[in-house]
Amino acid sequence: MSYDDALDAALERLHQEGRYRTFIDIERTRGQFPHAVWRRADGSERPVTVWCGNDYLGMGQHPEVLAAMHEALDATGAGSGGTRNISGTTVYHKALEAELADLHGKEEALLFTSAYIANDATLSTLPKLFPGLIIYSDALNHASMIEGIRRNGGAKRIFRHNDLDHLRELLAADDPAAPKLIAFESIYSMDGDFGPIEAICDLADEFGALTYLDEVHAVGMYGSRGAGVAERDGLMHRIDIINGTLGKAIGVHGGYIAASAKMCDAIRSYAPGFIFTTSIPPAVAAGAAASVRILKTDSARREEHQTQARILKTRLKGLGLPIIDHGSHIVPVIVGDPVHTKKLSDMLLEDYGIYVQPINFPTVPRGTERLRFTPSPVHGPREIDALVQAMDALWSHCALNRAALSA
Amino acid sequence: MSYDDALDAALERLHQEGRYRTFIDIERTRGQFPHAVWRRADGSERPVTVWCGNDYLGMGQHPEVLAAMHEALDATGAGSGGTRNISGTTVYHKALEAELADLHGKEEALLFTSAYIANDATLSTLPKLFPGLIIYSDALNHASMIEGIRRNGGAKRIFRHNDLDHLRELLAADDPAAPKLIAFESIYSMDGDFGPIEAICDLADEFGALTYLDEVHAVGMYGSRGAGVAERDGLMHRIDIINGTLGKAIGVHGGYIAASAKMCDAIRSYAPGFIFTTSIPPAVAAGAAASVRILKTDSARREEHQTQARILKTRLKGLGLPIIDHGSHIVPVIVGDPVHTKKLSDMLLEDYGIYVQPINFPTVPRGTERLRFTPSPVHGPREIDALVQAMDALWSHCALNRAALSA
Repeated sequence: MSYDDALDAALERLHQEGRYRTFIDIERTRGQFPHAVWRRADGSERPVTVWCGNDYLGMGQHPEVLAAMHEALDATGAGSGGTRNISGTTVYHKALEAELADLHGKEEALLFTSAYIANDATLSTLPKLFPGLIIYSDALNHASMIEGIRRNGGAKRIFRHNDLDHLRELLAADDPAAPKLIAFESIYSMDGDFGPIEAICDLADEFGALTYLDEVHAVGMYGSRGAGVAERDGLMHRIDIINGTLGKAIGVHGGYIAASAKMCDAIRSYAPGFIFTTSIPPAVAAGAAASVRILKTDSARREEHQTQARILKTRLKGLGLPIIDHGSHIVPVIVGDPVHTKKLSDMLLEDYGIYVQPINFPTVPRGTERLRFTPSPVHGPREIDALVQAMDALWSHCALNRAALSA
Repeated sequence: MSYDDALDAALERLHQEGRYRTFIDIERTRGQFPHAVWRRADGSERPVTVWCGNDYLGMGQHPEVLAAMHEALDATGAGSGGTRNISGTTVYHKALEAELADLHGKEEALLFTSAYIANDATLSTLPKLFPGLIIYSDALNHASMIEGIRRNGGAKRIFRHNDLDHLRELLAADDPAAPKLIAFESIYSMDGDFGPIEAICDLADEFGALTYLDEVHAVGMYGSRGAGVAERDGLMHRIDIINGTLGKAIGVHGGYIAASAKMCDAIRSYAPGFIFTTSIPPAVAAGAAASVRILKTDSARREEHQTQARILKTRLKGLGLPIIDHGSHIVPVIVGDPVHTKKLSDMLLEDYGIYVQPINFPTVPRGTERLRFTPSPVHGPREIDALVQAMDALWSHCALNRAALSA
């Protein structure tokens, strides 16, 4: 048994399948986002336009967000210096949690170092609080939810993506007295489709289940104050636990849940992933709180975001490209092969200065490899023109089939 | 089945055992650390001295660290905007990884959002890379290592804390051909004792096992360049994977592993906890890199840290208080009862302006509840005097037995 050989074999598998990932080293230029500088391995640089970032609204560049971070750095220093329980709770953390609880209309919110760990820690702790809990999980839930649900070997049922009949069937088959939780997302980030929130809440009521909604790709962007799709649809009060991120549309870092005071208190007290980790830096909390506060009233930014997404989708569709359009802000163009996807991405970067990362298995199912564009209010007509022209040229150059691919 | 009742029951258990945690809301004052302001629930404020922070060297206040963070914020904005693979790799992340690889004398380093997730993600991914892997884990390993080892249901053996005979017995009992890994810490943070690094490396060689060393409570503080205890003892080259944090002595936020290029590449490619999460903010990476760089040459700060710890331990011992002293920088005073520990902590805070959090189960075993002091170079004679006098007065006031308690 050679450890080295085993590592070689594991890496070789990725190369052979064409899904070995090469990280692209970029530096955004503040105030000029989505423009950035790509630094190649040889140290040479090239200006690029970022088309795959998750700073969906450009809030990571907002002067008030940056000012709040500078101020907190000056006032209190770099790190928090401890776990939440042991010297790592500051006024900045408390203020951000209050801002988030208010956003979602919940009694409390609980910060985590990421939305990944918020999902993982919360979903793996719930079975400790509700012995015998059965978790019903959408088949396309994010990796962090899957990891949390699997972690402690609790009972789980996977329902086919957005399939309410299947979910009902699974709920009906279990002991009516057993505690239950339905875990799903409001927007599935790889196809950009929506979860059927109201219908799932109806099923939860009928079968006495709790609801857990991941709004990671919706927070900041949907609803009159940016609380997400559940706010837009008037359904926030029917969700027991909402999960969100501060690292995408909010533009900073970290994650959270929002729920009843009692639920937050119990998760806070029992989740190792919350208890045993250093809290986020006060400056990060300050920046995130400023961003959330700004977005509560900045509906214009949300509308502009949706407008840019609609324009890009319309123009790509006009070229006959195989895009998926479920009416959200996410614009996936399906290529269907990991090697081709990587090649297209490389050519966009090298030849056109357009940075969009190939999305491969395990992020998406094999055979649905894609380029996934994330337009934002800071992607103007000039950037959209350049992207559309580049895609048109590449599709012709590579003789990719425009109609057949979308089938 | 009432969900509300279940939450009440879970919380009531904590109250009954006296280990319900109340977070203390503090705001450090930059430049005056360890002095801070405690904000009570009623909004009133009181100055306090922080005696339980993990910013062991005061680097969270270092002007160069803060300058690096301000600069990065101005240059590039708030968040990274993506996962490492999808637009979230910047020159700041690459520079920090290079700094850390150099620190530990390894080919590469890999950043995570925390050392918790670095442990969890790495240890849960290794069995995927080495099929049939058996992990030998010290009984007092940190929660994040335990979670990682348990996650995927791989084979594990728990050896009694620092018990080499037991470890040898377990290694010898398994198939010699099976891949093996020994996971342990260089300093166990709750007692402040050291792991027997050399002897464990010898056993690893004898039985063909990989070694995984958590240096979270040593990085920055031990070794001629602050790489940890393995550096101090000339053993870094014998460790396959080193885990460290940027949130304690480094003073900022985040975690990492350092290992061979091949090992880092495989973890990077297979660990969901690395792949599916937004990378740390560029400004956080910039601050951490500055701190690591400074600490590589600032041995005076490390010596001062050890001196302050020795003075505090000597003076508390002089009063006959039941402290644990294994020669590290950590100063635990055993109380042995969760209610008493909480009471002492409350009195120190309210009556003396000294903030030290009670440490209860599950962080330490029941019956060993304690106060755990973390002296630093910024805790001067005035702060140490005040602490020693307060402890003396409280021990008398509460009629705590000075000799018996240490037995």
